[in-house]
Amino acid sequence: MDTKEITSTGNATVKETARLRRKRRRYESHRFLAEGEDLLAAALAGGHMPRQVFVLEGSVAGVVESLRDAAGGPDAPEPDVDVYICSEPVMEKLSELGSGSRVISVFDFIDRELGGEGTVAGGEAPDAGICAADSGPLVYLAGVGYPGNAGSIIRSATALGASGVAFSPDAADPYSFKAQRAAMGAVFRLPVHIDVTPAEIIAWAGTRGRAVVAGDPHEGKTLWDHGVEEKNLLAGDFVLLLGSERQGVPEELLRASQLRLTIPQAAEAESLNVAMAATVILYEALRQRQ
Amino acid sequence: MDTKEITSTGNATVKETARLRRKRRRYESHRFLAEGEDLLAAALAGGHMPRQVFVLEGSVAGVVESLRDAAGGPDAPEPDVDVYICSEPVMEKLSELGSGSRVISVFDFIDRELGGEGTVAGGEAPDAGICAADSGPLVYLAGVGYPGNAGSIIRSATALGASGVAFSPDAADPYSFKAQRAAMGAVFRLPVHIDVTPAEIIAWAGTRGRAVVAGDPHEGKTLWDHGVEEKNLLAGDFVLLLGSERQGVPEELLRASQLRLTIPQAAEAESLNVAMAATVILYEALRQRQ
Repeated sequence: MDTKEITSTGNATVKETARLRRKRRRYESHRFLAEGEDLLAAALAGGHMPRQVFVLEGSVAGVVESLRDAAGGPDAPEPDVDVYICSEPVMEKLSELGSGSRVISVFDFIDRELGGEGTVAGGEAPDAGICAADSGPLVYLAGVGYPGNAGSIIRSATALGASGVAFSPDAADPYSFKAQRAAMGAVFRLPVHIDVTPAEIIAWAGTRGRAVVAGDPHEGKTLWDHGVEEKNLLAGDFVLLLGSERQGVPEELLRASQLRLTIPQAAEAESLNVAMAATVILYEALRQRQ
Repeated sequence: MDTKEITSTGNATVKETARLRRKRRRYESHRFLAEGEDLLAAALAGGHMPRQVFVLEGSVAGVVESLRDAAGGPDAPEPDVDVYICSEPVMEKLSELGSGSRVISVFDFIDRELGGEGTVAGGEAPDAGICAADSGPLVYLAGVGYPGNAGSIIRSATALGASGVAFSPDAADPYSFKAQRAAMGAVFRLPVHIDVTPAEIIAWAGTRGRAVVAGDPHEGKTLWDHGVEEKNLLAGDFVLLLGSERQGVPEELLRASQLRLTIPQAAEAESLNVAMAATVILYEALRQRQ
């Protein structure tokens, strides 16, 4: 664990790290930022050690202690983390919140290959603290573009017992600040899969014997009462397809679905936000499983 | 309907209107901004005529037509609206999005007294297009501070058949940009009540004979299986109390509740965002009603 002080916003490491606020740079370097003490705590609890931590002067002791604890306590080898003690202007340059952040951490990507649960996409073995749940619904977001919704869905999926959340190539980036913030650390606990094409998700469902269920705002069967046969679909492990609010689930995916589900609404013209719809369907699936 | 051109960001009307982005100014003037064509359309469909509309040059004809249509068509008296044809810099000065907005409208507050459904808080008679639903659950947000959550809850409540959403004095402002944006126009369709104290909501529930039900992340009864007696509570008209994620429902309100409900979760440490919790409970209530 190296500790260095940074007081200049022109510092090369700071400039390099600030570039991670852009998606392109994240995907070039396979690293992302997690802002705040809560996200660092969630990561450490999930067995993820950051590469670098930028800490506001005055908050260093607590952060160093939590890193040491996560690495196994005072008798274990020191974790391989660079800790930078930063002035307020440096923290502000790195922050997406703009002010008030005392801790900003840099992590390697933690998404996994869809085909091999338990395998991190980069090829390394998974960290011990992560539960790569093999049961429960898997959520597939086909083109859901708003990162706040993507993050909220990861959070709800974690709470309601999903096995993971997969993203189409045109969906929001779960590593973005807004997604991280809405997920509230759940991205460090639930397997996340990125760049999964519609063909891949259908093939995966086929090899796993999972039913494919699509959320459909208007023309599906009533969520709580969709017939005895289909009821078994939600009680088992299934893949839940969700599309963007404007375009819905793409036609090719709808055709591959065994069931389309609609959440009944009080008024025809109303609609639920896609994250709300995901949460309600996952709740109903949990209710039917139990 | 007066039409004027504004090309200077220093124009007095523009400066005065931009101040409505601050909560304090909104509550002094009892007016708020609704940004975008979708919100204007939702307002007109709900029977709400704006006081002023700022329109990007080039989009004026369509806006004027929709205002005339909403006022009753070409043979009806012109609506009492000031339309300002604005340059791009003027629109940017008014916009919270920062760029790309073609229409920004100013409305009088539309919240209602909790005691008298059908009465707008300002004292005027309600507009014809609004349905002041007297049945369905009423949601009470005790200190829910994040405006995006407040707006999402208004949207879900509208879709899932609630009779309204009430806000404690320390809750988020439903007239803020972020709340408006998340509500997607639902604030123009569902009765919203502001500045409702805990004592007032309990008294109101009492006079209406409504049960009081509190969301409780951990120690309540299981939402889908909370006993035969309580089941009738969700199937009837009730008041749903929700608190902030950090502090929950205040103790005095919990004591006044007949039932505390918990959404079962796959893992103890996980939790749902308050807007997700509201949506799931309203969904379950709709399911039990039907």
